[in-house]
Amino acid sequence: MQAYVRRLSMAHPGDVSALEQLIVSGDVAAQDVAAVIGKTEGNGGVNDFTRGYFTQSLMLMLARHTGRSREELQQAIPCVLSGGTEGVLSPHYTVLCRRRDGSPAEAGGPAEAGGPTGGVGGRLALGVAMSEPLGAEDIGRMAHVESVAAAVRRAMQDARIDSPADVHFVQVKCPCVTAARAQDAIHRGKTLPTLDANRSMALARVAGAFGVGLALGELKAEGFGEESFLRDYALYSSRASVSSGVEVDCNEVIVLGNSPHWGGRLRVAHRPMRDALDIGAVVDVLADLGIAARPQVAPQDLARLAAIFVKCEPDRRGRIRGHRHTMLDDTDINAQRHIRGAVAGLVAGVTGDTRIFVSGGAEHQGPDGGGLIAVIAEAA
Amino acid sequence: MQAYVRRLSMAHPGDVSALEQLIVSGDVAAQDVAAVIGKTEGNGGVNDFTRGYFTQSLMLMLARHTGRSREELQQAIPCVLSGGTEGVLSPHYTVLCRRRDGSPAEAGGPAEAGGPTGGVGGRLALGVAMSEPLGAEDIGRMAHVESVAAAVRRAMQDARIDSPADVHFVQVKCPCVTAARAQDAIHRGKTLPTLDANRSMALARVAGAFGVGLALGELKAEGFGEESFLRDYALYSSRASVSSGVEVDCNEVIVLGNSPHWGGRLRVAHRPMRDALDIGAVVDVLADLGIAARPQVAPQDLARLAAIFVKCEPDRRGRIRGHRHTMLDDTDINAQRHIRGAVAGLVAGVTGDTRIFVSGGAEHQGPDGGGLIAVIAEAA
Amino acid sequence: MQAYVRRLSMAHPGDVSALEQLIVSGDVAAQDVAAVIGKTEGNGGVNDFTRGYFTQSLMLMLARHTGRSREELQQAIPCVLSGGTEGVLSPHYTVLCRRRDGSPAEAGGPAEAGGPTGGVGGRLALGVAMSEPLGAEDIGRMAHVESVAAAVRRAMQDARIDSPADVHFVQVKCPCVTAARAQDAIHRGKTLPTLDANRSMALARVAGAFGVGLALGELKAEGFGEESFLRDYALYSSRASVSSGVEVDCNEVIVLGNSPHWGGRLRVAHRPMRDALDIGAVVDVLADLGIAARPQVAPQDLARLAAIFVKCEPDRRGRIRGHRHTMLDDTDINAQRHIRGAVAGLVAGVTGDTRIFVSGGAEHQGPDGGGLIAVIAEAA
Amino acid sequence: MQAYVRRLSMAHPGDVSALEQLIVSGDVAAQDVAAVIGKTEGNGGVNDFTRGYFTQSLMLMLARHTGRSREELQQAIPCVLSGGTEGVLSPHYTVLCRRRDGSPAEAGGPAEAGGPTGGVGGRLALGVAMSEPLGAEDIGRMAHVESVAAAVRRAMQDARIDSPADVHFVQVKCPCVTAARAQDAIHRGKTLPTLDANRSMALARVAGAFGVGLALGELKAEGFGEESFLRDYALYSSRASVSSGVEVDCNEVIVLGNSPHWGGRLRVAHRPMRDALDIGAVVDVLADLGIAARPQVAPQDLARLAAIFVKCEPDRRGRIRGHRHTMLDDTDINAQRHIRGAVAGLVAGVTGDTRIFVSGGAEHQGPDGGGLIAVIAEAA
Repeated sequence: MQAYVRRLSMAHPGDVSALEQLIVSGDVAAQDVAAVIGKTEGNGGVNDFTRGYFTQSLMLMLARHTGRSREELQQAIPCVLSGGTEGVLSPHYTVLCRRRDGSPAEAGGPAEAGGPTGGVGGRLALGVAMSEPLGAEDIGRMAHVESVAAAVRRAMQDARIDSPADVHFVQVKCPCVTAARAQDAIHRGKTLPTLDANRSMALARVAGAFGVGLALGELKAEGFGEESFLRDYALYSSRASVSSGVEVDCNEVIVLGNSPHWGGRLRVAHRPMRDALDIGAVVDVLADLGIAARPQVAPQDLARLAAIFVKCEPDRRGRIRGHRHTMLDDTDINAQRHIRGAVAGLVAGVTGDTRIFVSGGAEHQGPDGGGLIAVIAEAA
Repeated sequence: MQAYVRRLSMAHPGDVSALEQLIVSGDVAAQDVAAVIGKTEGNGGVNDFTRGYFTQSLMLMLARHTGRSREELQQAIPCVLSGGTEGVLSPHYTVLCRRRDGSPAEAGGPAEAGGPTGGVGGRLALGVAMSEPLGAEDIGRMAHVESVAAAVRRAMQDARIDSPADVHFVQVKCPCVTAARAQDAIHRGKTLPTLDANRSMALARVAGAFGVGLALGELKAEGFGEESFLRDYALYSSRASVSSGVEVDCNEVIVLGNSPHWGGRLRVAHRPMRDALDIGAVVDVLADLGIAARPQVAPQDLARLAAIFVKCEPDRRGRIRGHRHTMLDDTDINAQRHIRGAVAGLVAGVTGDTRIFVSGGAEHQGPDGGGLIAVIAEAA
Repeated sequence: MQAYVRRLSMAHPGDVSALEQLIVSGDVAAQDVAAVIGKTEGNGGVNDFTRGYFTQSLMLMLARHTGRSREELQQAIPCVLSGGTEGVLSPHYTVLCRRRDGSPAEAGGPAEAGGPTGGVGGRLALGVAMSEPLGAEDIGRMAHVESVAAAVRRAMQDARIDSPADVHFVQVKCPCVTAARAQDAIHRGKTLPTLDANRSMALARVAGAFGVGLALGELKAEGFGEESFLRDYALYSSRASVSSGVEVDCNEVIVLGNSPHWGGRLRVAHRPMRDALDIGAVVDVLADLGIAARPQVAPQDLARLAAIFVKCEPDRRGRIRGHRHTMLDDTDINAQRHIRGAVAGLVAGVTGDTRIFVSGGAEHQGPDGGGLIAVIAEAA
Repeated sequence: MQAYVRRLSMAHPGDVSALEQLIVSGDVAAQDVAAVIGKTEGNGGVNDFTRGYFTQSLMLMLARHTGRSREELQQAIPCVLSGGTEGVLSPHYTVLCRRRDGSPAEAGGPAEAGGPTGGVGGRLALGVAMSEPLGAEDIGRMAHVESVAAAVRRAMQDARIDSPADVHFVQVKCPCVTAARAQDAIHRGKTLPTLDANRSMALARVAGAFGVGLALGELKAEGFGEESFLRDYALYSSRASVSSGVEVDCNEVIVLGNSPHWGGRLRVAHRPMRDALDIGAVVDVLADLGIAARPQVAPQDLARLAAIFVKCEPDRRGRIRGHRHTMLDDTDINAQRHIRGAVAGLVAGVTGDTRIFVSGGAEHQGPDGGGLIAVIAEAA
């Protein structure tokens, strides 16, 4: 197997012409598309419809080129979008593809060659899985954790990644509790952990994070329970990136890792970010892939960067390295919009590229007040 | 003479208790306060009243401790505030003080010792000047340019800086054309360059920038005219930081440079920023002051950083290094708020400190689409 | 001919299920749909993509039910959406349909019966027209005025309305000058009235308003020129509602009036609004249709209200009846969002219904600082 | 005693010149000022500092004219400000004054004359009271309810209002739980009802509303408990308007009613509003004071309107009269800003005046999803 990745710009949230051109030109085979992760220029909140618009446009286009129906594609291809291109961020989408045998252009050297990337062995491996649908009464609870953990394990199998240590990034899209789903659960005599919509979405993300941590062995089943959620922030996964949305009723999982079973020239690495100023994590994850930033990635290396995924969070204690921030108390701009813009400014400055996936809501995804960064790059 | 600088936090825009404590404790003498440059947690726009609130609170407090009236102080001490603490930015104010002879704690080695700072000779010198009041018909025109240039020259004399090459940062606060001032000018038979409030404010900033550039020899009088304003962006000052506001009727100027006539341990340096991703400029200006960032300033060096001033601008061509940004088209968040948050994220990541003065509206202040950074630091 | 109207709710901007249900149930014939006017829950600004999302969803659905292609439908059926459901406003869309012979349920008494509606004779007549594509150099100019006027006249013919006096509402969607279109025009050696995007959109709306006024005889060709645009606000159409958008390259026109050639029970009336507090205009337009509001429309009359269209504007002089408003200087909330929310609060309070089309950008569309209101209602 | 009221405009939140002019001219005696209720042009949220700025400016000015200290005045004169002048709202403040004997200009006919105002007997009576400081552990609890109830009773005595039935409006400003106050309480071994800041502020408002309802006999002590808070919305006061803020540590109470012990020409009336469209309540409260709105208050009657106070709330069930609203899910504009703009549009349209106090956060203050309106007007 071989993975290949295209990072593409969009002119607006309904614009999938860049991918369509690649399909038409033969650069990408429509049936190779396994998952899409992107940033659209909405506000990233509950009333951000740019995600739905892009997804509808993408599936329509892929339906034309695969002969499969829109509904079928929507259930087969995870399309995880984060709204909000604050500051320097550029609207774009990363198309994660896989095929059986690499074209010459993509072929790399032998996968086992570690070379300059140090501990990063193997080549980029890519797997997806969908869990069974979740009842509203289970969302944000231990049953949700277990459902995600099982899906992560299946996605690892799909990616032919043998060891959890070789997984570097797990993107999960969880269902959330809508008013209708809550009603339905209550009619069935069930209780819900919360009736507050925002807290429910946060709990869903937390369950996703614990599920990933459990599957990857970062967290032990006996080491946490529901009472740890949104409370014991020392417990986290440094490879989980979780979002929660009304548009899914099961957990969609994308696993990225390195595996000797895959060819090509791509590899993935990750680092936890200890806070919003953790430039060291950015420089280190690039170094893991043999790319120097002194202080910025040089143009020839920039061309090797295939995708960057960041998860971050406004520090809920109201301070960053001892100084007060104002993100949490701003009535005009949502706190997640603030933090995405700031962390994107840092990562874009180090890399010299503004096409970065930066997503907020990082509870238990990386250290408290920080988050994580994962990078896919070509071997030198 | 000796300059000393205190960078202080505020709990809210009416909070000047940190400075009052230093005055009460004897660390700062109230009569030494020459100028204040700060960031308040407003929106930075026309309807940002945190600047007026802070200024009123500051002058009230200084009046108590100097025996001078609020009005008198307001005309003597430039207080330049930029609203908007987007992202990681922390509300704070930098108090620029000067006194005749340094206390032992502040005394530094001989000013001529260049040491590790390379081209940065002398010690921090600080001067202020106020121009005559400006008629609305002159704001944003050549007469405005000349008025600013003259005030900059007077502020240089006040600072005992002999050569323009030793000036590293000039903060100007210009008047803008209010509806009432426009009426008055029209009644006097004058014409105005524009009746659009935003364009008028931009033209005022531009006139300030050209005035600084002229006084510092960055621009030649014969090299530009009013037709260059907001058009010929190859013309700029890389040391001017200009704001425009309704609260002043003359140009208030603060000049920061290095001079052999001053003692103490502080020095100032600056660099133009070529765009919002120019991490090189940040690293270089720190290196000019003998401070390394590999990739972040080390704690012992961080303690030497006394103040950071940044000017930036959302690229008006809509792209950063080839990729579309969405700042200019966002109906929900003002473009200046976007860019301040992004550039602050970068500079805070390199320095490890979120108390940075970041101001937007950088037309002709640094390269087009970029801006400038100036730093005050103690010698090692 | 007979017009019929359905006012439908949407759960989100991609939700056209309410119309699809009516088509499936036979209440609406898909081929009867002549135009759609709606409010989506975006921000109503340049970066509001809820309009495109809804349009894509609508045309996809209609394509399924008509056998025509999405592109073909998009060129035949004007779909005019205003983003922004501020305050009490409810996301909804009004489907304007026409058919040859009315079903019994829709059939009304003889059209000539004036009855309680006073001057409103005839029955609701509905016509549409598309102009030829406009070059960027013509947008916002006299050529644009004439193009709109010609399209309005064609739409009147389409509606079989003989006299301009019988027209009560004209919705126009104009193209605007995009960067690409501007480039193209400049390459062809043309000049543009402005390079400022917002001013260009305003000029396009103004040209639309003058075009409607010209076609309806509200304005005389010799009474204005381009120098009147955005200057002589005494010149206006009180029946024009114009929007400008990147998604069209020609002028799309919907004309609503009353005509003896049409059957059914519906009629339309309109009134100019002199300012944002003009409750009298709201009460009067309802009275024109035989509906009392003392102070609110009674439930049995509310059921007769088929659609309400309002155009409004934050007073550009900064005052409403002598008192300062803050809409124009708010950096956090766009002025159009402010005014839509306020006027919608008033109209919804009088009618008791929150499904109102309220659109901003009312330059030369109704009195300066005010706007207009048009209502479709069933005969008693 | 005689009450008199001045409704004054401000040019910005630091502008109290209108009141100062009245003091200088002798129209208002500085020592008569008993309370101030106003709208400032901030965002109305946690980070709205226009309230503090106005209060500081007001107290500074009154200190100059009374010889009392700023601190003393701040503890004696309740200054209740609501940030947010959305839509048509005009920044203004209502100065509530009282003096022993009326000037001829203010003197009215005999207070007992009911005349056209129907059930509204007596003349405007005005009282204030401050409770003892509240510990953080008591805020939002039954102890808070009782503290407010006691203060309301004292303010009624201060106003010489004998019967609760004669009270028409009670404005309460409650303390809220800050992080520091919470810490302090926890150190003293206390528990808090919630650690969530927004919920804590809501509970404080609720305790205020129940306290007012208890003192006025609208609610019975045995009819509710803490378990009713934010749950049993059938329980409410239709005369309570409560805000909660960090700037007070006790409950500040302003009581407005009618009393035969007072002279002058002013009277107050109130009505509950059943929802955001309840135009009937607006028309009725005016009718209570002998003022007709058909559909708008006539100019000669408008001059009699001295002040309007409104409390409102975005319906938490997400619908208004059956149709979905989007206020609660908007990430860009705070829900309270939405509802204030909408209700203000309605009330301003009925009265023809945009100087209305409209405040959100109306939990248990009027019917669920609605609120209340109180009006002060001169007798005809």
